[in-house]
Amino acid sequence: MTTQAKSEQSDLPDNIEQRVESLVAERLDALVKERVAQAMKRDPAKRRVAIIASKGTLDMAYIPLILATTAAAMDADARIFFTFYGLNLLKKGGPEKLQVAPIANPAMPVPVPNILGMLPGMTPMATRMMKGMFAKHNVVSVPELLHQAIELDVKLIACQMTMEVMGIRREDLIDGIEFGGAAMFLGFATGAHTTLLI
Amino acid sequence: MTTQAKSEQSDLPDNIEQRVESLVAERLDALVKERVAQAMKRDPAKRRVAIIASKGTLDMAYIPLILATTAAAMDADARIFFTFYGLNLLKKGGPEKLQVAPIANPAMPVPVPNILGMLPGMTPMATRMMKGMFAKHNVVSVPELLHQAIELDVKLIACQMTMEVMGIRREDLIDGIEFGGAAMFLGFATGAHTTLLI
Amino acid sequence: MTTQAKSEQSDLPDNIEQRVESLVAERLDALVKERVAQAMKRDPAKRRVAIIASKGTLDMAYIPLILATTAAAMDADARIFFTFYGLNLLKKGGPEKLQVAPIANPAMPVPVPNILGMLPGMTPMATRMMKGMFAKHNVVSVPELLHQAIELDVKLIACQMTMEVMGIRREDLIDGIEFGGAAMFLGFATGAHTTLLI
Repeated sequence: MTTQAKSEQSDLPDNIEQRVESLVAERLDALVKERVAQAMKRDPAKRRVAIIASKGTLDMAYIPLILATTAAAMDADARIFFTFYGLNLLKKGGPEKLQVAPIANPAMPVPVPNILGMLPGMTPMATRMMKGMFAKHNVVSVPELLHQAIELDVKLIACQMTMEVMGIRREDLIDGIEFGGAAMFLGFATGAHTTLLI
Repeated sequence: MTTQAKSEQSDLPDNIEQRVESLVAERLDALVKERVAQAMKRDPAKRRVAIIASKGTLDMAYIPLILATTAAAMDADARIFFTFYGLNLLKKGGPEKLQVAPIANPAMPVPVPNILGMLPGMTPMATRMMKGMFAKHNVVSVPELLHQAIELDVKLIACQMTMEVMGIRREDLIDGIEFGGAAMFLGFATGAHTTLLI
Repeated sequence: MTTQAKSEQSDLPDNIEQRVESLVAERLDALVKERVAQAMKRDPAKRRVAIIASKGTLDMAYIPLILATTAAAMDADARIFFTFYGLNLLKKGGPEKLQVAPIANPAMPVPVPNILGMLPGMTPMATRMMKGMFAKHNVVSVPELLHQAIELDVKLIACQMTMEVMGIRREDLIDGIEFGGAAMFLGFATGAHTTLLI
């Protein structure tokens, strides 16, 4: 508003006008500061946890499920978007069949030379070993984690494009999940602080 | 402002002062709330999508490119920082040569025992199969996705440190890209909601 | 406030009421914009970099350490949460022993057919080669990067669940680190713009 417009509009005594201005300025400053601080604290991005699960091995299945169930237990809106090999986790009977191959990973707890790791029987053996290690320490299994995720309202989304490409039908997947694409993931992730890809 | 300061400064009748205060309070509360909410919605972090592409296999090339092109189509400022094996995607002729090995991944759509997967000819075969699956379902190829990314102004950044270490020269890479390091990535990512590493 | 309540309460001249309203409207817009912009600039989420390191190979060890040390040098609060194979980086003498296997990764700088890559001696050879490439270009080694991270106050957190499952004791790990779980990571990550999983 220009000075002219102001003086035209106003027919208050000068001191009253000034006092009104200073009162407004004074109140406004504090209030805006407080409200902005509140809004930042309540920022909905803090409550959103967006995870892409692109791996279908036993070891890499624990990570998204443990993170998402923990986030949901902390009252966050956690969503896992399953794409590529990650879709194996959503297949009926899929979580029970996940495996881990003891090759190309010299960082395994019990490293196996690749020339042995590639032998038939080694992948099932490594899988049994890893499952045993988790069970022994009372870590819930992947099927159980998936069940917990559903109970805790973690949203599970199957990537439609990958389903088509890999010939996976809706009836191949467990119930209670949603279907979407990259745009659906980004629509959620662009408003989330925590965004992770496994 | 203390009460004393206020009364010294003020020469308004008490009722006017009170009325101004209550008017300010009344208008302000709702208005500030609304304005702050609006301003938060325009948070620039929502428009930024920061991706690190560190893998150079065919399967893991789709993910950053599909996410970045979708984000750009949604009007986001999407940037991919290519490091380690991810640089293969930026090499001249590189996207055409990406491969996927059918070993160490028991989650492949058509799982192959590792003892077969490691045989000569199996990597080209798995690569052909995967390309065929995507083409059959009209998913654009990786070279085409890269082209779309450039058209959509996705910023493609090659990691200079990896280039030096791997002996990759600027002329080995496609045109229209930028060069930078971890600091450049973080300068962007620290202001982005969506940050993902593939 | 209803119109009736307003007229009962108010004994101001109409022009004061209008003037207050117009002042509030006039000041508010600019002020909210400015304050929200300030708050967003100071947003603590920009200063937080939350990284999960789940891989224990030589190549994938560089990425979290380079990102975290660079972030810390840029004055960010950078924390790495080591889980699964990533714990190898925190083992006493661990960083020196990291390896990279030249199989299942057709994107390696010097690709090796899997049938050769799986032969005994090939993993040590690929490891020596990669270390040599980094050293030749004056990139600090992984043990040195870990040392820098500690000097720069990057917080290093070992995943307690993985430690138990893999039978890793506190005394197996280097000094000066912390211990926690998914909840500890999420408590930090939900307030961080940059969140990455390697």
